[in-house]
Order: sequence, then structure tokens, then C-alpha cells
Amino acid sequence: MKIAVDAAGGDYAPHEVIKGAIRAAQEYGVEIALVGRKNVLRKLVEHSKTKPGLGISIVDAKQVIDFNEHPMKAIQSKPNSSIVVGIGLLKSGGADAFVSAGNTGAVVGAALLTLGKTKGVSRPAIGCFLDTVSSFPALLVDAGANADCRPEHLLEFARLGSLFSQAILKIERPRVGLLSNGTEDGKGNRLVHDSYPLLKNATDINFVGSIEGQDIVKRTTDVIVTDGFTGNIVIKTIEGFSDNFLVSVRQIGHVFSSAYRLRGRDLLRDIGLTNWARKLDYTEYGGACLLGVNGNVIIAHGRSQARAIKNAIGLAKETVERCITQKVKEEKHEQTS
Amino acid sequence: MKIAVDAAGGDYAPHEVIKGAIRAAQEYGVEIALVGRKNVLRKLVEHSKTKPGLGISIVDAKQVIDFNEHPMKAIQSKPNSSIVVGIGLLKSGGADAFVSAGNTGAVVGAALLTLGKTKGVSRPAIGCFLDTVSSFPALLVDAGANADCRPEHLLEFARLGSLFSQAILKIERPRVGLLSNGTEDGKGNRLVHDSYPLLKNATDINFVGSIEGQDIVKRTTDVIVTDGFTGNIVIKTIEGFSDNFLVSVRQIGHVFSSAYRLRGRDLLRDIGLTNWARKLDYTEYGGACLLGVNGNVIIAHGRSQARAIKNAIGLAKETVERCITQKVKEEKHEQTS
Repeated sequence: MKIAVDAAGGDYAPHEVIKGAIRAAQEYGVEIALVGRKNVLRKLVEHSKTKPGLGISIVDAKQVIDFNEHPMKAIQSKPNSSIVVGIGLLKSGGADAFVSAGNTGAVVGAALLTLGKTKGVSRPAIGCFLDTVSSFPALLVDAGANADCRPEHLLEFARLGSLFSQAILKIERPRVGLLSNGTEDGKGNRLVHDSYPLLKNATDINFVGSIEGQDIVKRTTDVIVTDGFTGNIVIKTIEGFSDNFLVSVRQIGHVFSSAYRLRGRDLLRDIGLTNWARKLDYTEYGGACLLGVNGNVIIAHGRSQARAIKNAIGLAKETVERCITQKVKEEKHEQTS
Repeated sequence: MKIAVDAAGGDYAPHEVIKGAIRAAQEYGVEIALVGRKNVLRKLVEHSKTKPGLGISIVDAKQVIDFNEHPMKAIQSKPNSSIVVGIGLLKSGGADAFVSAGNTGAVVGAALLTLGKTKGVSRPAIGCFLDTVSSFPALLVDAGANADCRPEHLLEFARLGSLFSQAILKIERPRVGLLSNGTEDGKGNRLVHDSYPLLKNATDINFVGSIEGQDIVKRTTDVIVTDGFTGNIVIKTIEGFSDNFLVSVRQIGHVFSSAYRLRGRDLLRDIGLTNWARKLDYTEYGGACLLGVNGNVIIAHGRSQARAIKNAIGLAKETVERCITQKVKEEKHEQTS
């Protein structure tokens, strides 16, 4: 299995991306194709003194798409960018999956243009795992690919999310919740009102009804369905909050180490706060999957460091092994035939 | 100044509501009219052994509107409910403000029906303070009164929020941000796209552009404008997260007290965690204001306990003192004349 990794994408590229990729190659035994500026990458990989035979290759891509670039314009004007080249590798069969922490819009755009939508899917969506108190994360779909949606899109997200959740987390009948501003009768915006009966009548998903914002952390459902505008705001709100918490955890450690003349790190470890803090650090968690395109595309957080990149590559490996793309295709084929 | 308080509204009514009201009367020197079942309330007030001369009266309201009742139906079928009676008091001049932790939809509905919209306001909205790391909370409008909005409504929310923020927090030119799924060109759903130019061209607000979910906690703006669907989901997501955090803080205290043979409470106090935790507990924070109706209506959290009720009454007092309703009226009068 070969996984192409965008070595130019993300705030900590290329150093942290390379570190994460090397760890992933060691831990998961996958081959890695680092996509980026060949000369730079070659030196960095040599410097990292990896064991020989790790299976890390380099694919040259001289251009970089920045975070603030307009996705579609950037894709067209930068055919040699790491994103376009990486997605191209996937298309040509030169890689089984592509992982990028770069411009999300550009990754989605390039995947749509080059790989195409899975037959029967009208709107590919981003499925993002939200790690919560529970042992299994909940999957939020759509985390940002489609700002404006119609009811039939939300039904599609529910199906894509259920399939993904089944395959990756091995949940037999994932509970699907529709995110709304209340669970009482009459609550919801027009989109929720119109989507509710579609979800309720769909026999191929396990729809459990509307859920509210506070249910996300409580993890009352396995799949959370919402439009990409709301979904994106929700995950970024949680992210901001978790950042805030992490800063406070560090302050607490500092204050404590002064007060009790202990090293802050010991305290945090003793009381299990480091693990908890890590669980809340969404930049560590790893990746989101672009669902409904002809290829395995994993979108890592822009602030990903080595551990997050390694985790995203792990998710890519799972996605390949569990044949997600193939499963979506078959499901859609059944629905349309 | 007399503030009517819904003694039947909220998960901890009437006990905690009465406690909070008595504390508010002591601390702020306001008169309180408790609205609810007279016989029950009289006994509870007598039991609480308040100092004489505190100015706590009781207004009889035999019916209760539950949380899961359909707001408009409940208002019509329960004219003697604490919400309808309380809003009626406001209308008749028997109170200067009304505070309720009851069914939000019913409070909004009753206010609209009985008090009416301020002239020039097409959609009253809920302005909710989000306490963050900063010393001043940010105001989110709309926190849930209008699930579906048009661009002109968001402009109105920006104006109402600015006025409220100016009056309550004494911020001279509150920075207004439009909540979106990205700040780059082309980001946003249709509503955001169409609202952006309206906000940008409005000379009476200090619009600073789009903001993202993570900016909410960072508090990059004083007023956060969004539709009531998204706004409600955002505040409830934060609430769920803060609950989760509070549970963990308690667990940490427990684990620590075992490990270091100290009382958990001491540790939490020593490292300043209790204050921080309290800051994150939105049920403690107090209240949201219904902006754009002819009267001062404060909506407290359904899970409000005494402290939160006291805080909500404090916000009501500020709202009355700073003549919010009058200011909105004047502003709207200027705009329409």
C-alpha cells in the first residue's frame, strides 16, 4: 500500500509532515510518497536518518497552494502544486490514498475535478471525527465541503456517514442524528424541517431524530448530519474551545508546580490530565475523510504536527484497507439500479 | 425598580428561583415580583426567613408552561401561566423587567404578542453573552429566536447587538463580526454572502468582517452576528463542552485528592480552577436579552440555579437602568424618520 502525502501542506510543512510520515511508515508498514519540492525533501529525509528499506519515496511538485488562495483559481494556475500532483498520483494509480494538511478547498476541488464524484453521489462531503468523552469518536458530516445544502444532500450525508462509520469504527447500525436548534416539534430551520421526513423514511440508515449542540459532546449518536456551513462552524467552535482549555491546562500546571513545589508535568500526568488534554486537541486527532469521490482522500488539520500527520496516514490506511470508496460505489450502485 | 421573576420556569423552580431572587433583592436593592402559584410561593418565601422590608411580592399564576410544550399553543391555552402573567405585568407597567428560565419559545412568543416589536424592528432576536477568556463577554445575536433569516435581519441583529453591547458593557464602538465557515473570499453560505455587503455598507455599525468558529472563544469581536439556527447550535455546543469540562474537573479533583492525600477542593481552589470552571459554566452566567421588543425581557438558562437567577436579575436591572428598550426605539425612530 502506498500513501501519497502532501509535504507542502499545513502550517508545519515540510518538517513535521516528514516526521509524521516517517513514523507512519515505521508504525504501519505503509509506503509513503512525499509530494513536494524534491531537493528540499530529499535533504530532510536524508537528515532524518531513517532506517533503509522504509519505503519512502519523493514525488516532485514545485508549486505550493497557500491557505488564503482561492481554491479553484489556485488549482488551475498551479498544476505542479503538491495538491494537484498528489491527487493526480491517486488518479493514475500511483498511490492508494492522499493525505493533505493544505488548503481544504483546493483538496476538495482537485479531488472533484480529477477523481470525480462516485456515481450516484451528488455532493461529496467531509466526514470529520469528533473525539469526545466516549471511547469512539462521533462522525460529523458535512464538516465544510457544502455551505448550502438541500434536503436530499443531507440524506446523502447520512448514508455516506453511516457507511464510513460502519467501515472504520465497525459500528453495525450507526445511529444518525440531525443537528438542529431544538428537538421539540416545530424546531429547526427550513432545511431541517424538509430533511427530517427524508431521513425518517430512509430504510437504509438508523435515524434517531434531531439532536442539539450539547448532544455532540455527549455523543448521543454515531453520525451527526448537518450542512457544511453549520458543521464547519461547530468543529471550529469546539477547536477554539479546546485551544482555550489547553492553554489553561498549561497555566494550571505552572501555578501548581509553584504552589506545591512539584513539577507541573508530574501533576498533569498523575491526574490523567495530559491524556485528556490530548484527546481534546483536535490538531492531534488526525483527519477527516472526503466522502463520495473516486479515491481515498484524507484532510488533516492545517496545524497538524508529526503526531497528527501520522494519525491521518493511519486513517488513510484504514480507509484503503476497508475499501471505503469501493463500498460507497457499491451502495450507490444498488440504490440506482 | 420592580423586576418580575418567573418562579415556575426552569429545572430548579421554584426553590432555586426564589433563592436567587432573594439574593438579588438583597444585593441589588430591587423589588421582586415572584410570579407563580401563590400558596406555594408564600410558604417558601416565609421559610426562607428574609429580612423584612426586602420588597418581595407574589403575583398569582396558577398555570405552568413546560419545556416541551409548543410555545404558541401553550401561550394561548394557558393565559394564567407564569410566563403570560409575567409578560402581562411588564405590559401593564406593573414591572420594569421580566426574567424567566422557562420555555424560551413561549417567552419570546408571549413578548411578541403582548409587548409587540419595537417600531422599525422586523425580527426581535436573542442576544446572549458568551463568557470567554476575556474580561468582557462577547454578545452573540441571534441565539435562537429566528431559525431562518434574511440578510436584512442579520443587519438588524448587528444594530441591536451593537446598541446592547454599548449600553451594557460600555464599549464605545463594538466590533461586529459575521459568523462564517471561513474568512477567505468565496467562503460563507448564501445568507452570509448576501449579508456581507449590507453589513459592510452600514455606517452605524463597526463591522470588522467575517469570523470563524474558533474566533468566538478568542473574542476577536464584541458582537457576533448569525442566524438563530446557527447561533443556537453554537451556544449549545459550547455549553455541552463546558459541561464535559466541569465533569472532568471534578474527576481530576477526586483523582488528585486520592493521589496526594489532599482534599480535592483545596487543590482546585489553590490552582484557580474553581473560578475558571465557574466562568465556563454557562448555567451560572446568567441571561440573554430579548432585543427589539417593547419591554425588558431576560431569558435565563433552563438549568439556572440561585446564582444564575441572581445574575439574570442583575442583567435585567442593568437593562432597565441603561434604558435599552428606549434606546432601540430612538435608534429605530432615527432610521425610519
